[in-house]
Amino acid sequence: MRTSIATVCLSGTLEEKLQAAASAGFAGVEIFEQDLIVSPSSPESIAALAAELGLSLDLYQPFRDFEGVDEEQFAANSAWAEAKFQLMKRMGMTTILLCSNVGTATIDADEVVIDQLRRLGDLAEKYDVDVAYEALAWGRFVSEYDRAWDLVKAADHPRIGTCLDSFHILSRRTDLSRIAEIPGEKIFFLQLADAPALSMDVLSWSRHHRVFPGEGAWDLTDFLTRVARTGYAGPVSLEVFNDSFRQADTRRTAVDGLRSLRWLEANVSAARPGSDRVRLDLHPLPQVSEPRGIDYVELSTDDLGALTRQIHQLGFRFVGFHRTKPHVQLWRRGQARIVVTESADPTVESPGPAVEFDGPAATSAESGTLLRGIGFAVDEADAAMERALLLSATEVPREQAHDEEVLRGVFAPDGSEVFFGNGTGVDPQWTDEFGTVPDDRQSAIDHINLAQPSHHYDEAVLFYTSLLALTALPSQDVPSPSGLVRSQVMSSADGAVRMPLNVSPDHSTNALSRGAGSSGETYPEHVAIACDDIFTAATTAVARGLKFLAVPQNYYEDLAARFDLAQELLDRLREHNILYDRDNRGEFLHFYTSTIGSVFFEMVERRTGYHGFGAPNAPVRLAAQHRRNTES
Amino acid sequence: MRTSIATVCLSGTLEEKLQAAASAGFAGVEIFEQDLIVSPSSPESIAALAAELGLSLDLYQPFRDFEGVDEEQFAANSAWAEAKFQLMKRMGMTTILLCSNVGTATIDADEVVIDQLRRLGDLAEKYDVDVAYEALAWGRFVSEYDRAWDLVKAADHPRIGTCLDSFHILSRRTDLSRIAEIPGEKIFFLQLADAPALSMDVLSWSRHHRVFPGEGAWDLTDFLTRVARTGYAGPVSLEVFNDSFRQADTRRTAVDGLRSLRWLEANVSAARPGSDRVRLDLHPLPQVSEPRGIDYVELSTDDLGALTRQIHQLGFRFVGFHRTKPHVQLWRRGQARIVVTESADPTVESPGPAVEFDGPAATSAESGTLLRGIGFAVDEADAAMERALLLSATEVPREQAHDEEVLRGVFAPDGSEVFFGNGTGVDPQWTDEFGTVPDDRQSAIDHINLAQPSHHYDEAVLFYTSLLALTALPSQDVPSPSGLVRSQVMSSADGAVRMPLNVSPDHSTNALSRGAGSSGETYPEHVAIACDDIFTAATTAVARGLKFLAVPQNYYEDLAARFDLAQELLDRLREHNILYDRDNRGEFLHFYTSTIGSVFFEMVERRTGYHGFGAPNAPVRLAAQHRRNTES
Repeated sequence: MRTSIATVCLSGTLEEKLQAAASAGFAGVEIFEQDLIVSPSSPESIAALAAELGLSLDLYQPFRDFEGVDEEQFAANSAWAEAKFQLMKRMGMTTILLCSNVGTATIDADEVVIDQLRRLGDLAEKYDVDVAYEALAWGRFVSEYDRAWDLVKAADHPRIGTCLDSFHILSRRTDLSRIAEIPGEKIFFLQLADAPALSMDVLSWSRHHRVFPGEGAWDLTDFLTRVARTGYAGPVSLEVFNDSFRQADTRRTAVDGLRSLRWLEANVSAARPGSDRVRLDLHPLPQVSEPRGIDYVELSTDDLGALTRQIHQLGFRFVGFHRTKPHVQLWRRGQARIVVTESADPTVESPGPAVEFDGPAATSAESGTLLRGIGFAVDEADAAMERALLLSATEVPREQAHDEEVLRGVFAPDGSEVFFGNGTGVDPQWTDEFGTVPDDRQSAIDHINLAQPSHHYDEAVLFYTSLLALTALPSQDVPSPSGLVRSQVMSSADGAVRMPLNVSPDHSTNALSRGAGSSGETYPEHVAIACDDIFTAATTAVARGLKFLAVPQNYYEDLAARFDLAQELLDRLREHNILYDRDNRGEFLHFYTSTIGSVFFEMVERRTGYHGFGAPNAPVRLAAQHRRNTES
Repeated sequence: MRTSIATVCLSGTLEEKLQAAASAGFAGVEIFEQDLIVSPSSPESIAALAAELGLSLDLYQPFRDFEGVDEEQFAANSAWAEAKFQLMKRMGMTTILLCSNVGTATIDADEVVIDQLRRLGDLAEKYDVDVAYEALAWGRFVSEYDRAWDLVKAADHPRIGTCLDSFHILSRRTDLSRIAEIPGEKIFFLQLADAPALSMDVLSWSRHHRVFPGEGAWDLTDFLTRVARTGYAGPVSLEVFNDSFRQADTRRTAVDGLRSLRWLEANVSAARPGSDRVRLDLHPLPQVSEPRGIDYVELSTDDLGALTRQIHQLGFRFVGFHRTKPHVQLWRRGQARIVVTESADPTVESPGPAVEFDGPAATSAESGTLLRGIGFAVDEADAAMERALLLSATEVPREQAHDEEVLRGVFAPDGSEVFFGNGTGVDPQWTDEFGTVPDDRQSAIDHINLAQPSHHYDEAVLFYTSLLALTALPSQDVPSPSGLVRSQVMSSADGAVRMPLNVSPDHSTNALSRGAGSSGETYPEHVAIACDDIFTAATTAVARGLKFLAVPQNYYEDLAARFDLAQELLDRLREHNILYDRDNRGEFLHFYTSTIGSVFFEMVERRTGYHGFGAPNAPVRLAAQHRRNTES
């Protein structure tokens, strides 16, 4: 199978779309009719550009409202179709998508539709065009893929086949078993889209909320496997209508799309070892398991004093400076490691990437204190890195001395860095470069909360899913004084890696301004540290002068009203600004620090298997941070 | 009845919300519990602030998941309720909202619920609290208002009444006739929200898409009239969960909310003359009819030469300079009038408002060429202006000589100016101040297309609905190379006034940047001129050197494929860059000019009653404008 993408997935002019698709590595495109109509370029010059870029023009689409009409309308529709066939001939195109009639159909009779499809086939034959008939989920009379197939089969015309589109099929929850009845050669085209699980009318769902495979809720691995079993050997093409994609950088969207197909192909191959039916003519992806844990988080700062003081207040121990990079130091608290890079020291080389790249924004351009990267402990770092590069991630340029551990990584969609290290999460080898400080305290990085630019949110979900084999948990909205914050956790199955992704209320299109929300308000990122005794941690922090995020008295009064807590516990919570939550498994106690630059910390204690993140308390934190922002 | 608003409608801290509500003119507020919990202010100080601002604290809300539970859970719930009653006592509050149980209810038995409501009433009695029981649309067992009322009635407790919420009732399309059965004194609270007609799950609809009355699709006049007939005399309160409102300027949202209640009150009074049951303790609004037409559009420019040249190319005649304001001139084409104000002439005083105001952004701060205001011909300008001011619009400061026609106006939410003139749209008296140029050509302003900042979109709909008695037609999405443009027409019933409101894809929170879209791309506004012969108009324009917006050849080929048009007509359309559309009433021919600053023009000819705006052609225009933007 070959990769393809509909131009309607992408923003920009038709030329920009073709260039983006080619640059991302697609083999072909579907030409969305309106993209051509609004273009000042002739059909011939578009075809020439595609040829120059090495793109095949796989499908002209959509043609619609054709069949199930009276003879007068049929004559008009046939003239319309013939004009489009002539246009396709000028572009060297041989397949057209015919959507089931939603507008002009008046006759719900199989024999009429079959006859009209057959006559369309005769007309198409004159222009060497194949017609791929697709059941739209909201078709007037034909809305199910198997009904469309029955009609195509009955028409029995070499130029009439069917088109399967995962959106139209999965949105209706149609039984998929009849896909197996369709001979692969009668499937003239295959379109893929994923979608979030929404309860809304299917037309709005389709027009605004489709996403690439892996970014939604559907099992496209199963769907594609079923289609592959029919023997279908045509393009595997993305057709996604998405409000954000229409606005986003078209090259990034194209890369995101191709990543989704590579990931899907690997899933199908893994599910059906030995079959090469769904090879997308791409280099096969190495399989990876989910990470074993988080080795470290790297923070970049121009205020080294404030940041290391706060880390120390949280009970971290200074391990040492890097033996060859004096602006880099390591701190640890049990198995929680923080690498601190001083960014403002003008005597050392810039810590950021020195080269330009077309991918996500490089955070090195930013000053202040920010989360620069995360090191993941994986089974095979080389395989993870190879997979990342095959998934079109951009490598982080990095200088390494010959005797140092080679750590390689890539940029995430938000501009942060993702590094892969071999190991189990326990004292990785590279830490020797900083010296040795034993620390067997029960402490680790519990989770890392990342702020995401809204226009690249779906891309971020697929990035962590496809590169790191993490799973997206259901999302939820958290109210803040300046809007709702959408929060979704990317997690490994065992919970060793947990990263809530937060989208701030500001719909900024500027990926550079990570963490920046509406009206200049910032939504900082944070690192949560797990400990086994939050009160001891808090006492140490108090003794060392930590500035806690203040929790209102009203919160504790509500806590007392909601939970049957001992007065002594309540008093201790209040004394240390500790928040509390409980679910049916256990308890969660946590406190927050004040914010330095774009970063703050959380200390958490999970009791007897509590699995959440204290979501009921998030509004308290957001309000406190809002007050701090608007007061300062 | 008295006006009230739930703090959850507004953005900011609780203090900011109270200040915004008081400043807009509300008599009271509902305290949304979470707003209090996250606040560092004590309940007593919040109550003191409200008293200082003259706001009554009308409702504590929500209390939930109380009834229909087993005895053990009931004991815990009662303790919880008592803690809240104690809190309310500290704030001097006497009414609490009880939502029907969605979470913990296990017993669907009337007698259990009735007994538990009655026991809650006994507890409430100890604290002088009234409990307003409301059926949430997604309640576990109680989801209809009449079921909630039956339970309240059966509980027969002086402290237990019901709360009616238009969202929960209208979203379920419940028969409203049983409202009449409820005695007014047993309705303990009334919450109002409107909503757009969406097909989605009711919980998401409620949590994200509620709007103020007049901004959605529901008949709240009928709803409020029914409630008023019961004798209900408590607060009429807005409870709106809206993602945009949560982000918007809280003072503007509060003003918008109060406007919706004043408008609604006037509607109810008009529907039931003689009744004063729904008087909101406000000054009664003068009734207005929809405008008779558009007297003029005012454009401000720092490039007088380019703008007047283009107006001339479109066949406008120069009428004259204003007799006392040499930087202002009038042009006309039949009954289409354009006032051109030169903004860059440093020898004259600033044409914009000299005072600061808290309302919409003043456009005078912007330079370039832009649509500054619209003059509407109304039956009674004085009444329209009085109504506008009572609806909290901000008057445009304006200097007038003693012998000049007094034109008064207000700022629209997008910062443009709305002026009211007495008349029929034919040669208004103020035009004498520019001189006299007879012009009986069949030409007028057909429509004016306004760009709206997305965060104030609903406010704009209510503004034109409530001030000008215009009607919002169904909205549609138009694709552009950089995203979907949402377009909705505000129209008078006879079509004499038609204003499509467009929201650009960029979700900018900055109301100042009118017309500015993503990546600095501008979405200009335009004035459409109706003529009776588009080819004559185009020929004149060509002769005078007009720069037309170029229409691609591909468009005409598609036109030929879609419509059965004579070759000669097609050739003429192509020659003059004229676009074409047809509906079941008639035909629409139109062309566009190039853009000057933030403004361009459209010339239209409507044949035999075509009612639309050439929507199928809008993508062609947007793509051409996008190319122009990205090329320049």
